[in-house]
Amino acid sequence: MKAIGFAGLGSMGLPMAVNLVASGFEVRGYDPRPEPRAALVSAGGIAATSLEAAFDRADAAVLMVVDAAQADAVLFGAGAITALKPSACVVLMSTCPPEAVAALARRVEHHGFGFLDAPVSGGVAGATAASLTIMAAGAAEVFATCLPVLRALGGKVLRVGSEPGQGATAKAVNQLLCGTHLAAAAEALSLAERLGLDMAVMLDIVSESAAASWMLRDRGPRMLQAEPTVTSAVDIFVKDLGIVLEAGRGARTALPLAAIAHQLFLSVSGRGLGTADDSQVIRAYRSLRGEAS
Amino acid sequence: MKAIGFAGLGSMGLPMAVNLVASGFEVRGYDPRPEPRAALVSAGGIAATSLEAAFDRADAAVLMVVDAAQADAVLFGAGAITALKPSACVVLMSTCPPEAVAALARRVEHHGFGFLDAPVSGGVAGATAASLTIMAAGAAEVFATCLPVLRALGGKVLRVGSEPGQGATAKAVNQLLCGTHLAAAAEALSLAERLGLDMAVMLDIVSESAAASWMLRDRGPRMLQAEPTVTSAVDIFVKDLGIVLEAGRGARTALPLAAIAHQLFLSVSGRGLGTADDSQVIRAYRSLRGEAS
Repeated sequence: MKAIGFAGLGSMGLPMAVNLVASGFEVRGYDPRPEPRAALVSAGGIAATSLEAAFDRADAAVLMVVDAAQADAVLFGAGAITALKPSACVVLMSTCPPEAVAALARRVEHHGFGFLDAPVSGGVAGATAASLTIMAAGAAEVFATCLPVLRALGGKVLRVGSEPGQGATAKAVNQLLCGTHLAAAAEALSLAERLGLDMAVMLDIVSESAAASWMLRDRGPRMLQAEPTVTSAVDIFVKDLGIVLEAGRGARTALPLAAIAHQLFLSVSGRGLGTADDSQVIRAYRSLRGEAS
Repeated sequence: MKAIGFAGLGSMGLPMAVNLVASGFEVRGYDPRPEPRAALVSAGGIAATSLEAAFDRADAAVLMVVDAAQADAVLFGAGAITALKPSACVVLMSTCPPEAVAALARRVEHHGFGFLDAPVSGGVAGATAASLTIMAAGAAEVFATCLPVLRALGGKVLRVGSEPGQGATAKAVNQLLCGTHLAAAAEALSLAERLGLDMAVMLDIVSESAAASWMLRDRGPRMLQAEPTVTSAVDIFVKDLGIVLEAGRGARTALPLAAIAHQLFLSVSGRGLGTADDSQVIRAYRSLRGEAS
């Protein structure tokens, strides 16, 4: 595995493509915008002006696009997938619903290529530092073939299952917890604030006790600020909890806590705060109390 | 502050009374059962055979009883509170609803005594090691007077507010997070289990990522066991989330996640598993999927 066609040079994709270059891969990157293509060239990569050029005789196509529909369009829209080397693998690293990933995998495998479902967690910081957690699912030989690529991108590379879609499920399970913990932190702090507790003392208690969560510790202090810096937007959880619920629907599994959490994020987005910091989900609770928030 | 009347020598109360003895207080302990009274005597304390005898000319009455109704009965049922020294303080350390605590405080203060609302977290282990987290609320002078008692019992003594009931609220906020995180862990692992993921790998991912919570890390592994050791029972969260929701009702504050979590614990208790380990809340999800669980 040497030549890689990389589709999607966004805030995550560009640093990932750059890390592949740094690990010695020949990376041909495609993005419709010229700026990230130029940035990839500065880092030693190759800019492709079409998907066909990016995938031409490549050993692997790595996709870091927005969603499953875009992944489908990249591979099959103009038939770029047929430009890959016959034994090539497609590595889908975007966050997508499990059923959509499984359907994509079937189409890719039908063309004779390997498919690895490999979503990530760790955000832009993890993408830049090559410290992503990668949740991979696919056939053992495909996983083994792609492992050097994954190791160049992630600090923790785990194989969660043998069926494409199971990586997406692992990511959904992860996001279910993140989103629900964030909403639970808002619910708890909202009660404390309503009853006039010393909020700094309250945060101190719950950040160190059995009540602690990563989200509470990270977002709790920002819930108490009026205009916190945006590190991740409300609309990211509108999307990700949407994928979680779609995973639940696909599996016919009820997810009542995630469903409530999704409604709370939706309500904050619906009042025009979709680009605000996700800690502002606490405003849903303040609104429920009838308070200006 | 020297002489303490201690009511309620249960699994938490007995080690707490023993720690007060070890810190040099003269402790007269009352419990209707003779065994814990004898245990207190072995540790250097004094067994009282009535509440009146326990509180007789004491500087403080410390209550570690089951609930607010029992606290009310201990103080006012046979009028034992009038046996205290005129300047004495009542320290309520049980987990009770905030409104009930505020009402008790008003009655105690009406008798001319100080009142400190001081619930704890940390369980039997924390009670034994004198490492409890104590969430105190009350007038500054009452808090200052009682501080030596609290320091003998807790590793972290915090004053969360000046009004009795605010300590109970802090405890409710803490339990809201614990119970909701526990149910969220069950919801997430249930989805993963339904879709056939490698559960050990899945737990490894979410225990270290932004999805992490103290409850997930502690209870997650036990959710995957058929008959885990009971460290805390399902019915404890049926009770504690009930108090959380009563706190929300009292404050007219909607707590949708805690309400759903409570229903899940209730359903597991209702099928006869109230004394099972609280990790078994995952069985609510398995039942929702129609699986034998």
